[in-house]
Amino acid sequence: MIIIMKPQAADTSINAVSNYITGSGLDVHLSKGTEVTIIGVVGNKSLISADVISSMKDVERIVPVTESYKLSNRKFHPDPTSITVGNTQIGPENLTIMAGPCAVESEEQLLEIAHAVKASGATILRGGAYKPRTSPYSFQGLEEEGLRYMQTAKAETGLSTVCEVVSLEAINAAAKYVDMIQIGARNMQNFMLLKEAGRSGLPVLLKRGLCATIDEWLNAAEYIMAEGNPNVVLCERGIRTYETSTRNTLDLSAVPVLKEKTHLPIIVDPSHSTGHYKYVPSMAKAAIAAGADGLMIEVHNDPAHALSDGPQSLTCEKFDRLTGELKPFCEIVNRSFK
Amino acid sequence: MIIIMKPQAADTSINAVSNYITGSGLDVHLSKGTEVTIIGVVGNKSLISADVISSMKDVERIVPVTESYKLSNRKFHPDPTSITVGNTQIGPENLTIMAGPCAVESEEQLLEIAHAVKASGATILRGGAYKPRTSPYSFQGLEEEGLRYMQTAKAETGLSTVCEVVSLEAINAAAKYVDMIQIGARNMQNFMLLKEAGRSGLPVLLKRGLCATIDEWLNAAEYIMAEGNPNVVLCERGIRTYETSTRNTLDLSAVPVLKEKTHLPIIVDPSHSTGHYKYVPSMAKAAIAAGADGLMIEVHNDPAHALSDGPQSLTCEKFDRLTGELKPFCEIVNRSFK
Amino acid sequence: MIIIMKPQAADTSINAVSNYITGSGLDVHLSKGTEVTIIGVVGNKSLISADVISSMKDVERIVPVTESYKLSNRKFHPDPTSITVGNTQIGPENLTIMAGPCAVESEEQLLEIAHAVKASGATILRGGAYKPRTSPYSFQGLEEEGLRYMQTAKAETGLSTVCEVVSLEAINAAAKYVDMIQIGARNMQNFMLLKEAGRSGLPVLLKRGLCATIDEWLNAAEYIMAEGNPNVVLCERGIRTYETSTRNTLDLSAVPVLKEKTHLPIIVDPSHSTGHYKYVPSMAKAAIAAGADGLMIEVHNDPAHALSDGPQSLTCEKFDRLTGELKPFCEIVNRSFK
Amino acid sequence: MIIIMKPQAADTSINAVSNYITGSGLDVHLSKGTEVTIIGVVGNKSLISADVISSMKDVERIVPVTESYKLSNRKFHPDPTSITVGNTQIGPENLTIMAGPCAVESEEQLLEIAHAVKASGATILRGGAYKPRTSPYSFQGLEEEGLRYMQTAKAETGLSTVCEVVSLEAINAAAKYVDMIQIGARNMQNFMLLKEAGRSGLPVLLKRGLCATIDEWLNAAEYIMAEGNPNVVLCERGIRTYETSTRNTLDLSAVPVLKEKTHLPIIVDPSHSTGHYKYVPSMAKAAIAAGADGLMIEVHNDPAHALSDGPQSLTCEKFDRLTGELKPFCEIVNRSFK
Repeated sequence: MIIIMKPQAADTSINAVSNYITGSGLDVHLSKGTEVTIIGVVGNKSLISADVISSMKDVERIVPVTESYKLSNRKFHPDPTSITVGNTQIGPENLTIMAGPCAVESEEQLLEIAHAVKASGATILRGGAYKPRTSPYSFQGLEEEGLRYMQTAKAETGLSTVCEVVSLEAINAAAKYVDMIQIGARNMQNFMLLKEAGRSGLPVLLKRGLCATIDEWLNAAEYIMAEGNPNVVLCERGIRTYETSTRNTLDLSAVPVLKEKTHLPIIVDPSHSTGHYKYVPSMAKAAIAAGADGLMIEVHNDPAHALSDGPQSLTCEKFDRLTGELKPFCEIVNRSFK
Repeated sequence: MIIIMKPQAADTSINAVSNYITGSGLDVHLSKGTEVTIIGVVGNKSLISADVISSMKDVERIVPVTESYKLSNRKFHPDPTSITVGNTQIGPENLTIMAGPCAVESEEQLLEIAHAVKASGATILRGGAYKPRTSPYSFQGLEEEGLRYMQTAKAETGLSTVCEVVSLEAINAAAKYVDMIQIGARNMQNFMLLKEAGRSGLPVLLKRGLCATIDEWLNAAEYIMAEGNPNVVLCERGIRTYETSTRNTLDLSAVPVLKEKTHLPIIVDPSHSTGHYKYVPSMAKAAIAAGADGLMIEVHNDPAHALSDGPQSLTCEKFDRLTGELKPFCEIVNRSFK
Repeated sequence: MIIIMKPQAADTSINAVSNYITGSGLDVHLSKGTEVTIIGVVGNKSLISADVISSMKDVERIVPVTESYKLSNRKFHPDPTSITVGNTQIGPENLTIMAGPCAVESEEQLLEIAHAVKASGATILRGGAYKPRTSPYSFQGLEEEGLRYMQTAKAETGLSTVCEVVSLEAINAAAKYVDMIQIGARNMQNFMLLKEAGRSGLPVLLKRGLCATIDEWLNAAEYIMAEGNPNVVLCERGIRTYETSTRNTLDLSAVPVLKEKTHLPIIVDPSHSTGHYKYVPSMAKAAIAAGADGLMIEVHNDPAHALSDGPQSLTCEKFDRLTGELKPFCEIVNRSFK
Repeated sequence: MIIIMKPQAADTSINAVSNYITGSGLDVHLSKGTEVTIIGVVGNKSLISADVISSMKDVERIVPVTESYKLSNRKFHPDPTSITVGNTQIGPENLTIMAGPCAVESEEQLLEIAHAVKASGATILRGGAYKPRTSPYSFQGLEEEGLRYMQTAKAETGLSTVCEVVSLEAINAAAKYVDMIQIGARNMQNFMLLKEAGRSGLPVLLKRGLCATIDEWLNAAEYIMAEGNPNVVLCERGIRTYETSTRNTLDLSAVPVLKEKTHLPIIVDPSHSTGHYKYVPSMAKAAIAAGADGLMIEVHNDPAHALSDGPQSLTCEKFDRLTGELKPFCEIVNRSFK
């Protein structure tokens, strides 16, 4: 941590900051420039409070030097992590395709889609049983009944399964029926839910919040991991910007940034980010080229009658064509669907 | 709802959309222009699905005509609402000042601040017992112990009290000790928590999400109200933008916009939005001038040693000077501290 | 300037950075921590290049300590500046009201509005003769003819005048007819235009770019001032965010931030920022309460037939009512219309 | 154009709007719903003003149905356009690589880089002679001298050349020395410069403004094309968002969106958008996979001593490695460097 003092900071102010730091058992490195004085802090920063310092007299600004996340930090864990989900592995040599409907609507619907996406190369079936919707008057999901259909689909196809959870009750139910739980964008900083997900020990797909920075996202992963659960997979799904021609703005540069900052695998969701099925193939290919460990794609057997997010869903036929087109990209980056 | 078809949309596509709508028991108004055809929908739109329509062939775009929120909508409730919190009222004739520390740290700290803010004109004491923090390694609050201190402060000063909740457990605890619960920015779309807040029947202070649109915010209020709880107060606390000279960007225009769209009272928080105590007085005055029903201000007896958010807290002395300066602004807008 | 090295930076990397700095005639302050090494730079930073340093081996990040703008910086010019425009003064004791139509449409229109706004308390007449429009097919302004009408209006009413310029030709024309030139949001980083505005010596109203940071804005002012022209007035007119219920998001916190960073006067434009006349009164009052030195408000004698920006224009009657309502706010902040 | 009236709009208001439209020679399609009335406009909308209508009584909102750009619109020009630049073609079968230094610094520097990027597969040499810089105290470019070096580099290597322009003088100078001019992000809505670029007849590389929507960008292209110059190439270079781990946020979804909306070629700049050379290879590959017609990449022989933007420049060696890695991606999408 570096503390930048205001120009003309009084010596008493500089001493006050220094004394607070040394009084907490840390060392101080003082650098008096012609214009400003800078105070470097040496030692275990958990013993002092940045908030305390920044409200001391004549302090201009504090610059953190090290990140607050540790368990997810690549600096302390240089090799990329592989996460086991059911009978499959996410990262670093696979290209994992998660596919399925936005919402589980019926057993027939789910099974038809599950068989189709399995045949096209997906290894994980996605399907929402608990749907967080902007309006309380929209369809909210089949809940535990939907989870049971997911279990049936797994038994029939051998696909592993992932389902969003929105409460401790949903986590407990999901633990009985599916292989991986998902924390959605709206709950990325629902810290109670993150802790419960951590305690569950289940693999967690952690979607990026709609306006979360990459640092906040990694700190959210840290909440899960700090409970003793190392099985976290990140999912970039677009951020909110001023541009309205797509539903959100897919931040694909987050992939190389995350590859530098964390050892956790990274999945890209081109469906929610763009909001329209016709943009999904381009962004799916781009995600593989950018280095993503996998894709999460919405597929529906009948998008025109989907109960949610129809416009962004691929039909089973379009999904099959897409996975065919993705294969040569996977070959170049030395990954395969598994 | 209006459906805009693509230029050169086939008649079969236009008929398909029309048939879906009339088949659902609604009426259709067809407008064939030289370039595009537009389909107006007349009737109860809850019988049809915008998602279904937008994925039909040759549909360019759907334009909603009415808002999805009803109970919070001023169109159906033209008079401004007054919400009772403990022994005080929020809106439309009062200027409610909620003040107190970001986090409850000890009984002594809380009582000292409570007496001070009461003397300066505050009617509601704020204090966080459950703190959602970006990093799992930061101070997370005193929880139920903190709530008990809030109860003591209420008993000693007569102030009403508000405390943030982050889970059903916290709501149940808060119900025993405080007068109003707060849903924070990070939980604004934690729909499970909104529903529980609705079922509790307690007055709810609903902060705007960090990148929530005003429509999403009013839909979040609708989640609470749809459970039978009409006691919702909105709190603007800044939105996330590219500008970094303030912690967030206070969207003060939201005040007149909300006054038009909803009958619920609106509070402004100049502390969290700006992130620095020195900008608080300007924005507090501006909020009153813009028509806000109240302010939420962080006050700390010793900001330099606060366990969270010290830099944005006013000292008790600065707060007292500020409330003195606010009085003439309140007089112009015909409101008083009560 | 502070240079933060990567953890485990090699000594050769640290030496390379140090040698570059000392080789340029500056001094170095080295602070070796347990995790990272920090290099403080002491001396005239214009002799070194941040870009050079940040691409050197093992450099993590550079933290600037001082701002790049000097002439506009309050640190070196603590008293607020007053700018003379025609026969009036902007800041720090006046509350300047600039009012008039978005676009000059005809002599009759302009004179009618000029007489009205003068009677209501405005001291500067605004009117666009060169209109930057998103589409090339929209009305682009009357150009020099419009400027002549401005001159007539000044002669008839005694109001000072301001007009937007978009090119050197427009600056030269404006110099003949009006008292102040305006650089609009879209040209805030048109550095050629800024330099020409600087060379003209005319008072300049510099609007904030649609996504300009406050630092970029002050650097734009610096372009004008570095040409020897100290007569710069800043105008906050809303920034682009994700929120669409207003045309832009008025960043009113910029007022206290600017009051801290610069000695230049600050005007607020509640018309362009909100995009709707009904939100203008609330934000005009809020701007005065926040400490602004003036307002720029669109007024039209017949908004329903305005050639541009009708929806955000006040009628002359509404403007008169508004200035009446603003007076008590001006009294509290000890300013008057002059 | 569709006009949505407020609920309970008076018949007189509805008639007023209708009369304005029919009085302008267009037809009206009236749709009276149970809640709102909608007025569809049929005919040549350039005869009426949206601004006029939106300020009429009881008008809630106007929904445009067709885009304001015509010449760049793919609806009226379904085949993708190929633009000739010197001895090369941009789009739709080539993958054009533009490479070179951010700023031309000397003849030796430029020639060394030119030979290197030519050998690695680039067909267009980029190099800035007029540099728009945030601070007036930063290096502003060699101006005409820099352009002469570009001409020499073209003569020696056979590369085509592109250079940013910031004024009419720069356009006139550039016309003598280089094959293509570039309008930078800060000038994307400098409409005077766009018109001059249009009149020059030179191929124009139009970079996206830092917070420009795709529609504003296409309208900026329209300014150039409306002057009779069809030779416009678009360049996505990142937009401003709240995320700070990259310099800007590369909006790669803009590629498929633009492919749908316009027939003009699209280039992606992974250097300025990410701001760091280490993220360039991932985003270059992703851009090709997403369907871009080319790349613009900063290359410097000695980034550690570059006068601007060193951190984002690749060395000649890294650039050569990258173009080798790009080739298999080009093969999949059936494009080659030419």
